[in-house]
Order: sequence, then structure tokens, then C-alpha cells
Amino acid sequence: MTILGLDPGLAIVGFGVVETDGYDVVPVNYGIVETTPDMTLPRRLSVIYEDVQTIIREYRPDAIALEELFFYHNITTGVDVAQARGVALIAAANAVTDEQLFEYTPMQIKLAVCGYGNADKAQVQEMVRTILKLDRIPRPDDAADALAVAICHAQSLQFASQYTIR
Amino acid sequence: MTILGLDPGLAIVGFGVVETDGYDVVPVNYGIVETTPDMTLPRRLSVIYEDVQTIIREYRPDAIALEELFFYHNITTGVDVAQARGVALIAAANAVTDEQLFEYTPMQIKLAVCGYGNADKAQVQEMVRTILKLDRIPRPDDAADALAVAICHAQSLQFASQYTIR
Repeated sequence: MTILGLDPGLAIVGFGVVETDGYDVVPVNYGIVETTPDMTLPRRLSVIYEDVQTIIREYRPDAIALEELFFYHNITTGVDVAQARGVALIAAANAVTDEQLFEYTPMQIKLAVCGYGNADKAQVQEMVRTILKLDRIPRPDDAADALAVAICHAQSLQFASQYTIR
Repeated sequence: MTILGLDPGLAIVGFGVVETDGYDVVPVNYGIVETTPDMTLPRRLSVIYEDVQTIIREYRPDAIALEELFFYHNITTGVDVAQARGVALIAAANAVTDEQLFEYTPMQIKLAVCGYGNADKAQVQEMVRTILKLDRIPRPDDAADALAVAICHAQSLQFASQYTIR
């Protein structure tokens, strides 16, 4: 089963693709979609929409997972992130069924990747590296975060309950 | 010139279409796109995306205007509104050029519609009714708000400066 993790933002959308047989999780690819402030907002959102669709067409994931959105940071960034997230979600929703879309809280992701819900960012990234048997931590952070969401979904398949986006 | 005003939200997207010759502003149509909480988030965003595209195809606006997004209300609602707004924007960006997309602050809208920037919601709605020579205030509020943004853009055409979405 192929899982695509997405970490949407307006400037950078991280993506991470993993394969799992229910036990091991292996990396397929990861990277980012980038937009720059010299582009208009509609143009930036268009790039995100099209590039996320291209990624989905290329890897044909069986499931797509995103982190649930909270506003613990800066509120202006929050607006941008939420607009970008809406666009990434619609690109995903146009490509797969609702039943193939999943969302996890930051705590669920930390718990799945590190084994405890209060892990810090560095610990999550180091565990992503270890689980995927990579030589180094994936860069940029957004790609590592996207891989963490994908790993979280892979782990959740071992449990009965699934968290669909409501 | 045909102008489409949009007031995006997750549960209700208001739309208002007006025609202007640079002097008079006449209503063409207005209404809402609705989604309900029993739908999944991706499904609600899909409905918004498709219905906004349908509205654009039907009225073929020369310009599309939205209110700039601020978080003066509830933060959770803010996430929903921003996600819906990103989706409405991408539907618009896929249908018209960036140069046909405009955004106005709440103060610009009040100033354009009422003549002063501190007008309250009821005053804006009453002025929308008066400007468009309607028998009653357009309902629901979201449709009236969308008409107010469209009127604001119609008025701004009389001035040299335009506000494109950055």
C-alpha cells in the first residue's frame, strides 16, 4: 500500500510517499512544492493545486494523510496555511475518495512515530530517519513532517480504528 | 461589465452578481452555496469548488471580488473560513486571470457602500438594498455581503487605483 503524507503551507507544501506491507515502512520519495511571495495569492494556490495533483497522479497513493490544523502559531500565517490546506485537500479530494483521506492530530503523529505524544520536532525527525532507514534526516523540515504523517497512517493500519477527515 | 462578489465560508458561500456601466450598478443575481456538517470536509470543499466554478461559468464575470480575510472572530471558524476561501479562490483563479481577481478590506467595502468606514452590518445591508433598488434586503446575510463586495469593486472602477490580490 502506498501512502502520501502532505504538510501544506503557502510557501512550502511538504510531501512524503511511503510504501507499507503492514509491518515495514519504506520511503518511496519526498520533497516540497514551493511558491514565492512575488507570485499573487491566486497564482500560489494554483501552483499548489496543480503540483499536488501531479504528485498524486505520479504515485497513485492508496491513502492520503494530513496533519489536523491548529492555530498555535501566528494568526496571519494561519490564514495562509489554512487557504493552502484547503487547496491541497481539494486537489486530493478530486483524485481519491473521501475514504482514502485521513487526518491526524500532532499528538497522534508523535505517538505513532516516537512512541510518546510530547516528542519535540528534532525527535520526530530523527525517528522518521530511523524508521525509513535513511542516512540523514530528510530536508527541508516540511518534507520530514509530511513523511511523519505518512508513517503515522502506516502505523494506524495496524489498529482497528481509523480517523477519516470530518 | 459583470462583477461577481464572493463571501466564502465553509457552511455558506454567498455570491452576488452585478452589472455596471461605470455609473449605475444593477443586480443580476445573488444567492448562496451551502454545505452541511454531515458531509466530510473534503466533500464540503469539493461542493464549494464545483458550485463556484458553475456560478463563474454561468455569469462569466469580468471581475471577481472577495473580502480580505481577518481573524476577528472565533479561531476555529477562522480555519474553516480560510480553507473554504482558498478553495473559492482557486476555483476563481482557474477560471479568470489574476488581473481579474480583487480583494478589499472590510473598511474599503463599508466606505464604498455606505460612505464611511465604520458602518455597521445593518447599514451596509440597507445600502446594498438602496444601491441595487431592491424591495427588500437580500437574504441570507452572506448573499448581501457578497453583493456589497461586488458593489465595492464597481465603485472602485471610478478611481484610478485598483487592489489586486497579492
